[in-house]
Amino acid sequence: MTDMDQDKAKIRVDSIQDVAEEVRDIFKRHEVVEGLVQRQDMPRQELVEEMVQRQNLHELQAKLDSLHPADIAAVLEQLPIAERLTVWNLVKADLDGEILLEVSDAVRETLIADMDADELLAATEQLDADEIADLAPDLPDEVIADVFRSLSVEERAQLKAALSYPEDTVGALMDFEMVTVREDVTLEVVLRYLRRLDKLPANTDKLFVVDRREGLRGVLPISEIIISSPDQKVSEVMITDVVTFQPEDDAEETARAVERYDLVSAPVVDVHNRIVGRITITDIVDYIREEAEQESLGKVGLRDEDLFSSVWKSAQNRWLWLAVNLCTAFFASRVIGLFEGSIEKLVALAALMPIVAAIAGNSGNQTVALIVRALAFGEVNKSNTRTLLIKELGVAVVNGILWGGIAGVAAWAIYGNIALGVVMFAAMVLNLIVGAAVGMLVPLILERMDRDPAIGSSVLLTFSTDSMGFLIFLGLATIFLV
Amino acid sequence: MTDMDQDKAKIRVDSIQDVAEEVRDIFKRHEVVEGLVQRQDMPRQELVEEMVQRQNLHELQAKLDSLHPADIAAVLEQLPIAERLTVWNLVKADLDGEILLEVSDAVRETLIADMDADELLAATEQLDADEIADLAPDLPDEVIADVFRSLSVEERAQLKAALSYPEDTVGALMDFEMVTVREDVTLEVVLRYLRRLDKLPANTDKLFVVDRREGLRGVLPISEIIISSPDQKVSEVMITDVVTFQPEDDAEETARAVERYDLVSAPVVDVHNRIVGRITITDIVDYIREEAEQESLGKVGLRDEDLFSSVWKSAQNRWLWLAVNLCTAFFASRVIGLFEGSIEKLVALAALMPIVAAIAGNSGNQTVALIVRALAFGEVNKSNTRTLLIKELGVAVVNGILWGGIAGVAAWAIYGNIALGVVMFAAMVLNLIVGAAVGMLVPLILERMDRDPAIGSSVLLTFSTDSMGFLIFLGLATIFLV
Repeated sequence: MTDMDQDKAKIRVDSIQDVAEEVRDIFKRHEVVEGLVQRQDMPRQELVEEMVQRQNLHELQAKLDSLHPADIAAVLEQLPIAERLTVWNLVKADLDGEILLEVSDAVRETLIADMDADELLAATEQLDADEIADLAPDLPDEVIADVFRSLSVEERAQLKAALSYPEDTVGALMDFEMVTVREDVTLEVVLRYLRRLDKLPANTDKLFVVDRREGLRGVLPISEIIISSPDQKVSEVMITDVVTFQPEDDAEETARAVERYDLVSAPVVDVHNRIVGRITITDIVDYIREEAEQESLGKVGLRDEDLFSSVWKSAQNRWLWLAVNLCTAFFASRVIGLFEGSIEKLVALAALMPIVAAIAGNSGNQTVALIVRALAFGEVNKSNTRTLLIKELGVAVVNGILWGGIAGVAAWAIYGNIALGVVMFAAMVLNLIVGAAVGMLVPLILERMDRDPAIGSSVLLTFSTDSMGFLIFLGLATIFLV
Repeated sequence: MTDMDQDKAKIRVDSIQDVAEEVRDIFKRHEVVEGLVQRQDMPRQELVEEMVQRQNLHELQAKLDSLHPADIAAVLEQLPIAERLTVWNLVKADLDGEILLEVSDAVRETLIADMDADELLAATEQLDADEIADLAPDLPDEVIADVFRSLSVEERAQLKAALSYPEDTVGALMDFEMVTVREDVTLEVVLRYLRRLDKLPANTDKLFVVDRREGLRGVLPISEIIISSPDQKVSEVMITDVVTFQPEDDAEETARAVERYDLVSAPVVDVHNRIVGRITITDIVDYIREEAEQESLGKVGLRDEDLFSSVWKSAQNRWLWLAVNLCTAFFASRVIGLFEGSIEKLVALAALMPIVAAIAGNSGNQTVALIVRALAFGEVNKSNTRTLLIKELGVAVVNGILWGGIAGVAAWAIYGNIALGVVMFAAMVLNLIVGAAVGMLVPLILERMDRDPAIGSSVLLTFSTDSMGFLIFLGLATIFLV
């Protein structure tokens, strides 16, 4: 066997960045040609230009044809709008649907805006009902109506079902590609039935065993079919100890369960234990990633933003958060305003007050991060909230004494005023306690209000530690120093 | 069929919170009894106490025996240390290894500290080489030596291999549970071979087809084995278009590839295309979660912290971050110190300066969040950095004019000083530009230095927008107002 033969079996994953770089190279060469032509401005050049352009597009087309839809999606994400739409129009139409599923919401918007109703309808034709449901919010109403008409009765019911469940539930994540069998047949019969299928749905690690009314009786792992003797009955080898979910179940909790039990697929059943769908690990992975991204953007008040959207659109996407923060900053500013007389008499206060606010904010944000994580894992509850609060307050006192002490000594050294140092110390200790209390309670309250504690907590915390920090420090200074 | 029969097939996932609540209830009842006994202080009570205690522990034991190891791990996470160790000692010894794998690093430390060398050795005996490698950093050296001696030659080689790859590489994530077959046999032979195995390793959706030297020739999906005719040869139905990874590959990029291509398992090969291991979706899911958590804690300067560790230990865990922030806050404070003369003359400056710093910090953090996400997806590169920088600066100018305008008018209204309003406006615009430039460049520089841009960016950004905000605002005020 030669080395060449060996290489045939091995496809290394192309780094998406390399591919994108190639695509951009093609565009760049294209620009260079255009530039040359424009400068020379000779009619004959037009012909050359068109030839070269055609060749470039041909090269691009060949590159795109060799790519997996998910890779094309990744390339589209990182191209500026004009290039993105050029690539999009070169993509084979039968991949459109899959690519639309893979790209981010913001990029999907730009692609759909470029398609007419017929193209959109064609794109959905290769998709399953649960996938169409994922696209539906971004499709124009008349396209959805067309799509609906094009579906079979069964698919219509599935699409309706998938659309009826709120985001962040199992119902919105599940698919309908389950293979079901009866328990009273032999594995031989099951094998014959499977051989008649063209292929098994992705992520099929188990078949679902149902009775005549679609009631779930158990699951039959594919590995059992292979390992067991063909004349055994399904009922003899099936597993009845099944982890199931219901369409109304919370997606985050379900994701944690799928992770905990290392599931590849699991049945979704209704209240009568009838099978209605299937949840798979790939859906869960997508969900986890999306949640993580939404959270990291949500923390700074952003919804999904296309990296290459216009300045004006991007600016708008950031307004709400900046407006909220401007309000809280003005509130804190008015707190300082109350003490302008004290600051005039002892101007050192102006230089020191941001330190008191900042360190308590930092310390409080540590508490927020821990509590938010513990809430996500369901680790916080009535019986341990008090223990945790006492611990966090204890940590704040220890850190207040340590870092407040250092800050106090530094203030004393810089301004030669020991009383100022003592006030600095006391204000730091008190404001770190404020930070711990707020950092602990705000996430708990948001959670109880069914809001995502990861998202609003930090703003409220900083608001508290800023305003209270200024109030405590300037207040103490006014009483004891001026 | 009765309803009862139906219920048998359906095990709903117990909410871990409910289970933990139950465990804590048992402890609480236990405490009540202890309290009673202590108050009455009669010798006969001791007997009663012991009986009740024994019954409680018995109940707890029964509960624990019914739980999946991953669920026990989740319960352990949310118990204070004393209760945690009581539960830990009640857990069946043959689950110890799996539970240690499931708990967080911080909790694992507390559990391992409670075990002697023999118990630790016993715990590792149920684990595979790749799992032992995951525990190894937390095990005492002498235990590792004992474990090593207890392994077979093959397992030793695997453990050595797994330990030799740095964290965040495929080598550190892969397992060794791959089933390999030859290409020149029929599916019938493959089936016979599989039937001789007790069970297939978890996540086996494909067998790996190898030659005599373990060189990868292709993969054989389990579903192909089932669907194809048994007398077909492996070489006829195997897939040669295989996504493979190498042990040195970056784990994050690999995770993205596994997600993109919806893989359940994939072969890991060395430079000679010889199979050395296997990567599975469950390993990837664990990796994604751990990364996300490390990131959200790392952003506020925390390493993994046990929710119930002592105040003193927790305080220490937070020091480095607070120390860094105290330094940056003092630096900003000294910038203000430079302008004390101006503040004494126009005390409104003291009240307004935190607004200039805060809004630029908020706006810059939005830029950081977008760039960090784009970097994680490999969406930022030489050819689009300039486009992005120009866009972010444009957004900063738009937002600076809008929110700086509002802030300027507000300052004018509050202090009746139009020049102060203009200075406020100009400082906001300039500092938002600083925020955008720093928020864009810091993550890029950290990425180029091979540091995680998600972790250090925010501190550096706030440092810049605070110091520069004070400098710009107070500097402009000194030139134009006082």
